[in-house]
Amino acid sequence: MLQLPDILDARDRVRETSRHTPLEYSHTYSSMTGADVRLKLENVQRTGSFKIRGATNRIATLSADEKEAGVVTASAGNHAQGVALAATRAGVDSKIVMPEHAPISKVKATRNYGAEVVLEGTDYSQAADRAHGLEREENRTYLHAFDDPDVMAGQGTIGLEILEDEPGVDTIVVPIGGGGLISGVATAVKERNPDARVIGVQAAGASSAAPSLDKGERVSLDGVDTIADGIATRSLGEGTFPIIRERVDEVVTVSDPEVAVAIIYLLERSKTVVEGAGAVSLAALLFEKFDYEADETIVPILSGGNVDLNTLTNVIVRGLVETGRYLKIRTVLKDQPGALESLLAILTAHRANIYAIHHDRTSRDVEMNDTEVEIELEMRGSDHVEQFLEDLRDEGYDVDVLA
Amino acid sequence: MLQLPDILDARDRVRETSRHTPLEYSHTYSSMTGADVRLKLENVQRTGSFKIRGATNRIATLSADEKEAGVVTASAGNHAQGVALAATRAGVDSKIVMPEHAPISKVKATRNYGAEVVLEGTDYSQAADRAHGLEREENRTYLHAFDDPDVMAGQGTIGLEILEDEPGVDTIVVPIGGGGLISGVATAVKERNPDARVIGVQAAGASSAAPSLDKGERVSLDGVDTIADGIATRSLGEGTFPIIRERVDEVVTVSDPEVAVAIIYLLERSKTVVEGAGAVSLAALLFEKFDYEADETIVPILSGGNVDLNTLTNVIVRGLVETGRYLKIRTVLKDQPGALESLLAILTAHRANIYAIHHDRTSRDVEMNDTEVEIELEMRGSDHVEQFLEDLRDEGYDVDVLA
Repeated sequence: MLQLPDILDARDRVRETSRHTPLEYSHTYSSMTGADVRLKLENVQRTGSFKIRGATNRIATLSADEKEAGVVTASAGNHAQGVALAATRAGVDSKIVMPEHAPISKVKATRNYGAEVVLEGTDYSQAADRAHGLEREENRTYLHAFDDPDVMAGQGTIGLEILEDEPGVDTIVVPIGGGGLISGVATAVKERNPDARVIGVQAAGASSAAPSLDKGERVSLDGVDTIADGIATRSLGEGTFPIIRERVDEVVTVSDPEVAVAIIYLLERSKTVVEGAGAVSLAALLFEKFDYEADETIVPILSGGNVDLNTLTNVIVRGLVETGRYLKIRTVLKDQPGALESLLAILTAHRANIYAIHHDRTSRDVEMNDTEVEIELEMRGSDHVEQFLEDLRDEGYDVDVLA
Repeated sequence: MLQLPDILDARDRVRETSRHTPLEYSHTYSSMTGADVRLKLENVQRTGSFKIRGATNRIATLSADEKEAGVVTASAGNHAQGVALAATRAGVDSKIVMPEHAPISKVKATRNYGAEVVLEGTDYSQAADRAHGLEREENRTYLHAFDDPDVMAGQGTIGLEILEDEPGVDTIVVPIGGGGLISGVATAVKERNPDARVIGVQAAGASSAAPSLDKGERVSLDGVDTIADGIATRSLGEGTFPIIRERVDEVVTVSDPEVAVAIIYLLERSKTVVEGAGAVSLAALLFEKFDYEADETIVPILSGGNVDLNTLTNVIVRGLVETGRYLKIRTVLKDQPGALESLLAILTAHRANIYAIHHDRTSRDVEMNDTEVEIELEMRGSDHVEQFLEDLRDEGYDVDVLA
């Protein structure tokens, strides 16, 4: 099983390609929680996530012949970019297989880091088949994204950095997909400072760790569904599961709306871009998924920042809805002069700012003499939304809340 | 006229409320430009912008009686938050007047920093009238956002920090609204290191500095129109204009689309949130608005990060359009089975990913037998867009590009 010396060895190698990322005190989250919150900003790591650490360490352990033959993997995510840059820096040839419909931004970034991108198949498993084909045909080493001790050791260097910057840390909160990151971090932390807690966080829509721990054996999910696509993994690894069972104190889950709220807090208050998988740790803290004492020093690892901008805009809207700052309603007006104005008077009285109004007299869903109106509003929070909807209904409007 | 000792005095006072923000080397922009680019991350300053510096310094110079009577200002922007926190930290009462329809997020933030927010009028000038009314009635000191030597001296502390962190800086690029920031920075830099260039940047839609310098007197614009709302100012100040004339090397402008592109680069590549006014400096560098040598050390000041999330989503879409990664088209199909499929085959051949399709048979703009279709697509860049549109037109489709 992975031990501290493996991670200490990894640290020297990982320095070649990756940076010691900042650990930053957050006034905002400290005052929200009463704890002493320090964010591990791994979203500003080279290639935008921690994956560069594990990939660098794995490649460093290859023999000269293996380096000569090159590496291959299948990934449309952060692992792709981590392997690409780690290989390029080590002078090793890399091929990354991605499904044909992988986001263009990921394909481009991976190519820019020096890998050859092979587009194959319609989903990850077809891409992985092709990657294993290249492993055999070209004698390349296949780099697994998490289920490999050298990869875990590389990721564990994050734990060493946290202990170095904040020796008195009480609790470290770590995202879990396949478990590579938390296996490394827990190994580093528990051997150095057994009193520090390590808490794992999964997305509720991809939660294999808690049932696996309950059952005492790895559980594989039939499917996954979460905005935190970087941790949308169906099961823990063969190698990561026993480490998590032994060294992780607690595993919790967060919902997609909770993740969206954490992301918009990070944008607005911390001015930093974190992807869904990277924000689950802060979400778990803000939504009190685990117990903590006042003044405890808590470090959520924000593991990555590679969010597609289109995804980000959707997440922002979702987060605004969750925090009662965006409201979309549909109602029906009598199709007569002044009907819309009467409705708008109520909006004005409530100081609900209008983003957009869609006024449709031809909708098939309403009576001939009626007209349907959809309104998007900026609101001041959940209380404001509730009071406003109550008043509208008191005035006789039949209101559907669309978002 | 403002001199270096004023700024050195300000530095000691400003430490009380604001942080020495990071100056961070950017691999991305350095390799894009060939220069050595270091970002001054003032967007992570307390209250989200540099305004806290000037407000703190101004309040520190008040007499005991003036402090007792409190301060007042009119602002719906960063100055509001800066004054609010600076006053609270100094134990001084503050009232901030904002127009009635000020963004809720700004009202909330300003209240959270301890100010009383007074909502008055429909625009800034009505809010300012009310603030001056409070100045007289309650004997409060009115804090101007830029045209005040103590405010400029506070902002100038950014210049000292840049020189301290990077004594060899060649060029500093500074956003200009009313000119308070650049007056302070240019004064600090030119007295310490006369060889360093100070370049000012305005939004093309609020460009009063260049015509003022040309004419040799302050020019006031009839109106302003830019997404960089933090620098949407109609004229330089009486006090800032002569300083800019004497100490700033060059003033350039950037367009709104250029600002949007800079913002999305900062989100995607630097994982940091910068508002429009704060991103004009990077935009000027990336779009080569001034000359520079290879290996020159260039510091764009990213002056603030307080962007409303709704604004941010609009800016992201605008930036994606500009970089050829988002395309919205409208075309007309014969309303017969298979017509849409034929169109989609062309999309597939080009690997254009579909975000949304709106298919409308009832639009009044088309013939009875036709049907209108609007399609939103993810594209790979400007070349990809051009080739795709050419092929569509070659196939006989009449295409309108909507975005």
